[in-house]
Amino acid sequence: MHLPLTPIRFLLWAADEYGDKVGIVDGDKRFAYRQFLDRAARLSAAVQSLGVEAGDRVATLSFNCHPLLEAYYGIPMARAILLSLNVRLAAEEQAYILEHSGAKVAIFDPEFLPLVDELRKSRPGIRWIPLYAPPNPLSWVHSQTYEELLAAASPESIDFTIYDENAIAELFYTSGSTGRPKGVMLSHRTLFLHALTALIGIYRRGEKRPADQQVELHTIPLFHANGWGKAHTVTLTGGRHVMVKRFEPAHVLALIEREKVTGLCAVPTMATALVNCPELDRYDLSSLEEIMIGGAASSPSLIAETEAKLQCKVLAGYGLTETSPVAMIAHLKDTLGAVSEEERIRRQAMTGFSFPGVETRVADAAGTDVPKDMRTMGEILFRGDLVMDGYWNEPEATAETVRDNWLHTGDIAVWDEHNYFLIVDRQKDVIISGGENISSLEIEKVIVAHPAVYETAVVAVPDEKWGEAPKAYVVLKPGASATEDEIRDHVRKHLAGFKVPRTVAFEAELPKGATGKILKRALRDPHWEGMEKHVHGSGRS
Amino acid sequence: MHLPLTPIRFLLWAADEYGDKVGIVDGDKRFAYRQFLDRAARLSAAVQSLGVEAGDRVATLSFNCHPLLEAYYGIPMARAILLSLNVRLAAEEQAYILEHSGAKVAIFDPEFLPLVDELRKSRPGIRWIPLYAPPNPLSWVHSQTYEELLAAASPESIDFTIYDENAIAELFYTSGSTGRPKGVMLSHRTLFLHALTALIGIYRRGEKRPADQQVELHTIPLFHANGWGKAHTVTLTGGRHVMVKRFEPAHVLALIEREKVTGLCAVPTMATALVNCPELDRYDLSSLEEIMIGGAASSPSLIAETEAKLQCKVLAGYGLTETSPVAMIAHLKDTLGAVSEEERIRRQAMTGFSFPGVETRVADAAGTDVPKDMRTMGEILFRGDLVMDGYWNEPEATAETVRDNWLHTGDIAVWDEHNYFLIVDRQKDVIISGGENISSLEIEKVIVAHPAVYETAVVAVPDEKWGEAPKAYVVLKPGASATEDEIRDHVRKHLAGFKVPRTVAFEAELPKGATGKILKRALRDPHWEGMEKHVHGSGRS
Repeated sequence: MHLPLTPIRFLLWAADEYGDKVGIVDGDKRFAYRQFLDRAARLSAAVQSLGVEAGDRVATLSFNCHPLLEAYYGIPMARAILLSLNVRLAAEEQAYILEHSGAKVAIFDPEFLPLVDELRKSRPGIRWIPLYAPPNPLSWVHSQTYEELLAAASPESIDFTIYDENAIAELFYTSGSTGRPKGVMLSHRTLFLHALTALIGIYRRGEKRPADQQVELHTIPLFHANGWGKAHTVTLTGGRHVMVKRFEPAHVLALIEREKVTGLCAVPTMATALVNCPELDRYDLSSLEEIMIGGAASSPSLIAETEAKLQCKVLAGYGLTETSPVAMIAHLKDTLGAVSEEERIRRQAMTGFSFPGVETRVADAAGTDVPKDMRTMGEILFRGDLVMDGYWNEPEATAETVRDNWLHTGDIAVWDEHNYFLIVDRQKDVIISGGENISSLEIEKVIVAHPAVYETAVVAVPDEKWGEAPKAYVVLKPGASATEDEIRDHVRKHLAGFKVPRTVAFEAELPKGATGKILKRALRDPHWEGMEKHVHGSGRS
Repeated sequence: MHLPLTPIRFLLWAADEYGDKVGIVDGDKRFAYRQFLDRAARLSAAVQSLGVEAGDRVATLSFNCHPLLEAYYGIPMARAILLSLNVRLAAEEQAYILEHSGAKVAIFDPEFLPLVDELRKSRPGIRWIPLYAPPNPLSWVHSQTYEELLAAASPESIDFTIYDENAIAELFYTSGSTGRPKGVMLSHRTLFLHALTALIGIYRRGEKRPADQQVELHTIPLFHANGWGKAHTVTLTGGRHVMVKRFEPAHVLALIEREKVTGLCAVPTMATALVNCPELDRYDLSSLEEIMIGGAASSPSLIAETEAKLQCKVLAGYGLTETSPVAMIAHLKDTLGAVSEEERIRRQAMTGFSFPGVETRVADAAGTDVPKDMRTMGEILFRGDLVMDGYWNEPEATAETVRDNWLHTGDIAVWDEHNYFLIVDRQKDVIISGGENISSLEIEKVIVAHPAVYETAVVAVPDEKWGEAPKAYVVLKPGASATEDEIRDHVRKHLAGFKVPRTVAFEAELPKGATGKILKRALRDPHWEGMEKHVHGSGRS
């Protein structure tokens, strides 16, 4: 029987099978799955009554909250496309995204009123729906709030068989480090299949409790490709969503205790904040089963410390917005056999292995697999149902990124004979010196371990003899001091000679993007003016 | 990214991720996943070299063995359709199926040589490939054995992106109780989606061990829709298949110990045979995690006894060939909350609840849901990706069975507010007396509990006053005796008056089909000659 694959079915199924069960917890509010479905259907009817038609883009601008989760179902129900904006981007970037995507309606949290006021000027014609009434009435804000619209809506019962599984359901702009943000398109089918395979790959590896007893704490903002892609997996098993607006360690710990949370995702700095939270011992965290660390490279010491302090399994995961996003996780594979405790931790800190429905390779510039020796670097390529359906209105960028059904990630990795991967750098940050690939991350890890260093970035600069050479930019800790030679000597103690930065520049601060990421491009590009920097791998830049 | 959904990908993925791991155990033979893939690819090349083209049917006639499992991948790899014959059918039925399906090639176990000799006469033009050389050379048997064909084949590497996900991959003839067998068509997409959702629904409910450490004992012949649909789920997680040719309790127990089996499926009589096996205590069965009981109604006492004796979770499952087949399983649902031990067993003996991707209803003849009161009977209807793609060359039967995307199962059930189902009868066996629906199974269960009764069948006969009335056919145990009144009194003690058989006929034996099922039709039809028996529910007969 050929039925359209759409995540809308997950919510319909949950409402059918778990109708009276609380599906969403958001602060003091608790919504049963039947209410969740009713609210999503009302949202669908409401945006349609505002003129939203099939294929139109509806933006959201909010931290995690129940309306945002409702929008992940309600907007696609209207056959429209959910455009979930990253609230941390600058006004100029937001304006570009609204313009590029052609959003028609935007649902926003009035806490972003100053930003929205800028946006509505530069991008007129968007209907701005507030989640609640702003403190002062504003002529350009829609007269009805989100709740008023839902209350007034006349939802019809949802017939999922009318949807086109290949239509786009969600759109996430990803900044990349170069060029303008690009809109990653995810179809109903892609989201459906990602949820099924992610559920098999991520969750179901020997949990203590059945799937419908899992309680997921949404610590990652949903605008990061559905909070790393777990949102739909929770709905499809009748688990429970617990929303976290902002990540505050003590608040998160209190929520884990109160809601008997079983799983969450965290970037390394979140994990560090949790284990170092002074109130840690005050909370009962015994419900916790698993924490997935992603968003940046993990380390065995972080995995070990988080496991010890939070008393649950902690492991790394990896994916891109372009892969819905999570595509692999560092579970222990049966083929490893019995492993030592040290090896277990080392494995769980790696990028992991692919889950069913995903193929992953590490390839050189010619597209040939590099040896599985954990030394030879190559670009990570993905093929799978969870790979995006292209970049919105960017056919050239799409064709450059997805070639012959393989997604070129721009991430540089090594792999081993068990198909475990380890990301070593972004493609454009690899330094190619005398034919050797040098991971800038590797050098940075060593430099940042120097007691005087606060943060650092290592980039490739032109070198007459070697083609390229590493150069380090360093910010010292307040009151600390170090010389160029001291930094270089420190690196030499830990790494091969050709990895030692040729020069070290001390800076008061480093250039950063909206999400707090260091912009290496801004440091590197001035050195390459009028020249072409060779990019490792496939030539994508 | 739009890639074809096909179970072939499961084997490719397993060979990639678990290449050196033993994927199939068959007696003393052990095949790593890489060999498994190589053999399937060789089989694909071999049948193509024999002239098999896209869409052609290739039959198999064998109990469970590794070549049969290989055929589940190798035949669809050749873009052909696997037609897995039930070895227990009579020659006449086999001949009809070969004729109706137009099979071109058949792979057979020479233990069925007498049967095949009949078939090749009535259905000439089929190429008969023996799994091994028959004792005496026969001109009509293909000169190369299965192994010789594989050895001689030149397999190409498999590019799964060339397959049409909507093409039919497998064909299972289901006898039904009336009319000729019908060929259930399962497409690549249907099989792919069934495996994913079945894995989520069946396995992943709090197992002790991760998916890739699961070891599945194939106790159900694969020709029953892939041994109830678990075969693909094992491959897709990198678990291990252990083949069982014939179900012999002591042999099965020995295999569980030797191969550290974690799961298996069983019909009630198999479970009874295991718990009553005199050698039970001699084996270490501690690896066992879960047994799914299906194929016939289970009972709480069987569930409880099997759990106690085999020390693992035992629960019922339900599905039809038309649903790939398993569509629900009697796990405990989170919404039940804490349940007593008695209630747990009672739930696990029910038909269960649907898994994600499947919708199930119990409807009356008008297609309206019956009340969820565990009393009102209706027909079970399914809608889901796992529903078949129609009956082979039977458009009318297909249109009658699948209406408006709902599969009409012909099974009569009740349900409760938790969406747990309990099959009470086959549609055509329900007795409609004075407007009351009476389950023939319910009466039979009572009669068979009478100490003198060996077996029984209850059918509807015409009744002037009530329209229909129950009549019981009874076979007594050797040497036992009972009167009609004794049987009727026995039923009256346990059931309402209108359920007491109006008449009881004592027989030496009951008419049975090839699979040992009692043919109620043969008992019922003579009473209805020239009249039309009303059929409960949708009017299907």
